[in-house]
Amino acid sequence: MNVSGHKGRQSILFDNNPIVTGWASVAGKMEGEGPLGRYYDVISDSPEYGGKNWEEAESRMQMTAVRKAVEKTDISMKDIEYIVAGDLLGQLIASSFGIKSFNIPVFGVYGACSTMGESLSIASILISGGFAENVVAVTSSHYATAEKQFRFPVSYGNQRPQSATTTVTGSGAVVLSVDKPGRINRKPHVCVKGITTGMIMDYGITDANNMGAAMAPAACNVIENNLNDFGINACEYDRIITGDLGSVGSRALLDMLHLKGINISDKHMDCGSIIYDNKKQDVHSGGSGCGCSAITLCGYIMNQMLSGEWRKVLFIPTGALLSPVSSHEGNTIPGIAHGIVLERV
Amino acid sequence: MNVSGHKGRQSILFDNNPIVTGWASVAGKMEGEGPLGRYYDVISDSPEYGGKNWEEAESRMQMTAVRKAVEKTDISMKDIEYIVAGDLLGQLIASSFGIKSFNIPVFGVYGACSTMGESLSIASILISGGFAENVVAVTSSHYATAEKQFRFPVSYGNQRPQSATTTVTGSGAVVLSVDKPGRINRKPHVCVKGITTGMIMDYGITDANNMGAAMAPAACNVIENNLNDFGINACEYDRIITGDLGSVGSRALLDMLHLKGINISDKHMDCGSIIYDNKKQDVHSGGSGCGCSAITLCGYIMNQMLSGEWRKVLFIPTGALLSPVSSHEGNTIPGIAHGIVLERV
Repeated sequence: MNVSGHKGRQSILFDNNPIVTGWASVAGKMEGEGPLGRYYDVISDSPEYGGKNWEEAESRMQMTAVRKAVEKTDISMKDIEYIVAGDLLGQLIASSFGIKSFNIPVFGVYGACSTMGESLSIASILISGGFAENVVAVTSSHYATAEKQFRFPVSYGNQRPQSATTTVTGSGAVVLSVDKPGRINRKPHVCVKGITTGMIMDYGITDANNMGAAMAPAACNVIENNLNDFGINACEYDRIITGDLGSVGSRALLDMLHLKGINISDKHMDCGSIIYDNKKQDVHSGGSGCGCSAITLCGYIMNQMLSGEWRKVLFIPTGALLSPVSSHEGNTIPGIAHGIVLERV
Repeated sequence: MNVSGHKGRQSILFDNNPIVTGWASVAGKMEGEGPLGRYYDVISDSPEYGGKNWEEAESRMQMTAVRKAVEKTDISMKDIEYIVAGDLLGQLIASSFGIKSFNIPVFGVYGACSTMGESLSIASILISGGFAENVVAVTSSHYATAEKQFRFPVSYGNQRPQSATTTVTGSGAVVLSVDKPGRINRKPHVCVKGITTGMIMDYGITDANNMGAAMAPAACNVIENNLNDFGINACEYDRIITGDLGSVGSRALLDMLHLKGINISDKHMDCGSIIYDNKKQDVHSGGSGCGCSAITLCGYIMNQMLSGEWRKVLFIPTGALLSPVSSHEGNTIPGIAHGIVLERV
């Protein structure tokens, strides 16, 4: 293959690395009470977050996350050329209603819980390709909107098996910008070195209460091809961070990689497994949802990278491509994952 | 603004024009019986299109459209580096299940019925930016899956007002490729000169049976900014083609543009208004859905451009950003549109 900036079947190594100039996380109350609570910019004290209903709450979280992320940059909202946004809800209503007032060109994206990876990928392509100087990538999820959408009315209080995860309430937004002299006053900063775009992987899982297992093959594919495409070993990374495999899916991922001769057990971390205190908060297999990886990135991960703990991270939000209709029709749950190579420079 | 290949607030003029190397349309039976029937590659003889249910039918239509589009090129499926795909259904299940077997990296996109414009935009950016040589943009809709998703069970046979449109059954796929010597054996061909990316426009429409009115402001915004960004007059285009405004939305669009001093009445065409024989086929305000603009592009429009009837076309799929949840909660229906400048060279 002989394309500028492109390397390998699924990956792009950028010539011009987009840099993270702003980031912000808005978290729900329960997420704020979790072990990563001190890293969030805003913690909501109610599920409505000042809105009339849960969907409006989720939209308002996206709006706040975008505003806060842009506030951290040296530019203003009018300098943002595109917003790449998505969420879990049918027809992406959390995003549409959350960002419509900004009057900025929009690309709506859907990769289930991998959406933060997809929005960061497209934002990076826009910047590295020279099509924009500043792009926002944003996503969200909300426990109550997701339960209502995918499972049962929350008021039923239905029981779920231990393999089920808990949808994270929150929104994360990142401002990616073109790197130019004088742009970053504050050193060090984090940039996007490359991306590994996921294929849809379907291993025939049909249990909507075990989405970790449905997504593990997609994460495995992205990790394997990221290492192959860039010709590197897993030891290149300080952390390989999946989105929301939870405890069940994480075990499946490590087993699948082991069969391919890849060992990441000493550097794997899963946002869904660390976002709650699994013993005290009764979240079963962990956290999930677009917001899970998004607020972990825009809180804990950015903190660890900027503080010097980690230099290079492979960030892989993971998604389960199901809908209530596809599940009711007996379909499988295909998975997808999108890898982002983040580096502190 | 000083970004390579970028021109104006909402538009990109590409330095390297992606070229259309393959295209295909799969249409439903009723669409096949319409005035554009002879331009479709495949016409399904049943709503199931060989599947077990309507959702599977829609997925199979996407799969066929992608296969047929790639068959028309001088490359094979393994040369396709990305698929940019979307549809109207919650969590994009028509796309996920339609394209999962191709084992190609995927970007899922959602812009309601404007999705063909968004997928072509992102595919063009990937190619013009040097990130890929061959990308497929595909979308679909299906009358029965959309009615079930957004309105009432089809078997109710409920009455709709004359301002309502009929969701088109069909899928259109385009292969965009990098232009290099010897690539196109067949002259003339069609290329993407530029794009104008839509903002979300909300004029407060709440009537889900009048989506034309909800989308007209978004189409108006794209047309106005396309002309401003490129510094051209509407007479530059042989046709300005909206996606699915229908008769009601088209009138609103022409009126809104008239107030801005822009007259496109002699060159405006709306896919939704020409896809059916509105007198004989009882479709009320016309056709709609992602498939409406997609199969019109991949049938009639490509034919008119390649045969020399039209040289330059502004193609603007239009979308209404509503969901059953947002409508039931009394929300407005924001609109979005994505403009693609197509030129025969």
